[in-house]
Amino acid sequence: MPENPAPASARVAVKRLPARGFYDRPTIDAILDEALVCHVGFNVDSQPFVIPTIFGRHGDQVFFHGSQASRMLRAVRGGIPMCLTATLLDGLVLARSAFHHSINYRSVVILGAAAEIVEPEAKVAALKVISDHVIPGRWDEVRPPNKQELAATSVLALPIAEASAKVRTGPPKDDEEDYALPVWAGELPIEPETQPPIPDARLPQSIGVPGYIANYRRPR
Amino acid sequence: MPENPAPASARVAVKRLPARGFYDRPTIDAILDEALVCHVGFNVDSQPFVIPTIFGRHGDQVFFHGSQASRMLRAVRGGIPMCLTATLLDGLVLARSAFHHSINYRSVVILGAAAEIVEPEAKVAALKVISDHVIPGRWDEVRPPNKQELAATSVLALPIAEASAKVRTGPPKDDEEDYALPVWAGELPIEPETQPPIPDARLPQSIGVPGYIANYRRPR
Repeated sequence: MPENPAPASARVAVKRLPARGFYDRPTIDAILDEALVCHVGFNVDSQPFVIPTIFGRHGDQVFFHGSQASRMLRAVRGGIPMCLTATLLDGLVLARSAFHHSINYRSVVILGAAAEIVEPEAKVAALKVISDHVIPGRWDEVRPPNKQELAATSVLALPIAEASAKVRTGPPKDDEEDYALPVWAGELPIEPETQPPIPDARLPQSIGVPGYIANYRRPR
Repeated sequence: MPENPAPASARVAVKRLPARGFYDRPTIDAILDEALVCHVGFNVDSQPFVIPTIFGRHGDQVFFHGSQASRMLRAVRGGIPMCLTATLLDGLVLARSAFHHSINYRSVVILGAAAEIVEPEAKVAALKVISDHVIPGRWDEVRPPNKQELAATSVLALPIAEASAKVRTGPPKDDEEDYALPVWAGELPIEPETQPPIPDARLPQSIGVPGYIANYRRPR
């Protein structure tokens, strides 16, 4: 277990159940790297929006992308305050009382402002980071973005500077007097699992499923 | 396929790829009912926060809960603008070009303000809705919340009035000239699957795994 440093700010500190809060980069990075999608929060006219999107981490930055025309991209590329949250659901926690039921999960919250990546080579590199995050190995096989596609895409970088992880693991914690109740208690783990790949209808039969799809797994 | 009504407001309308936007309640409700967690977005001092939480739907309302002391609950029970987003990840979509890669997903965005449920009987009923959403059948077997637990819990109701669903399904859509590229294309479905339940260490061996855990499935 890595040492748990102090939070970067009061506002990013885990308030409820602070023992579940972690601020070390190995814990934060492992959650970001395993999560496939994140949820980005931002304001338009003081109304919060929360939108799911794919992303990728490279060093101290998280990249995400979208159409130049998307509301999310137009809002956050101005450098307004935003929040990026990645959540891994690990299972249900069944206690003897309704109150002590819980969820095993690992989540990361990053607060900050995103900067747009405009230089074309840096933009392509960031898109490769996102692609490698979702499907390692895929980028090198497919047609890379052309000029028009690149121009139509906004790529944003959010620094991992003000971030926290929150983690719950393990069995239920019941009140002592409830352990005698005749009710099943424990954990029901849940994991995302791939199903058999579905080839595109126009794919020639000679093109087999690549190894990175046949053996697809999130890093853990 | 149910008819697709107009969005309740301009701000909740799906802007990017509007053909993926749905505003009918059967589509919205089915996504809400299948999702185990949602992400709640709210502002504290103009900084957006996005926090994962469990929830449950009853009719035209979504209930969620937390500690009276939680930042999320303290912020949103004042009736400030919030956003609740539920996302189901259905799989990866592999195109012949990097640009046309996508994700199959179903998501719901609800904008509005939450009201706190204070009347104890209504509060217990809403907690049962959340419990039934996560594990149908569980509530009736466990010790119900006592006075102190109920007082320590905030329960909020968000109306499903300004809501939209966004859905992507099916194969990749490539540029016509890219179909000739010798690269695998198609879908990789991903589904959350339960793993064998883990009994609590203090559970008597005489108490077997209940059917609602042995046969646990999200509604679909």
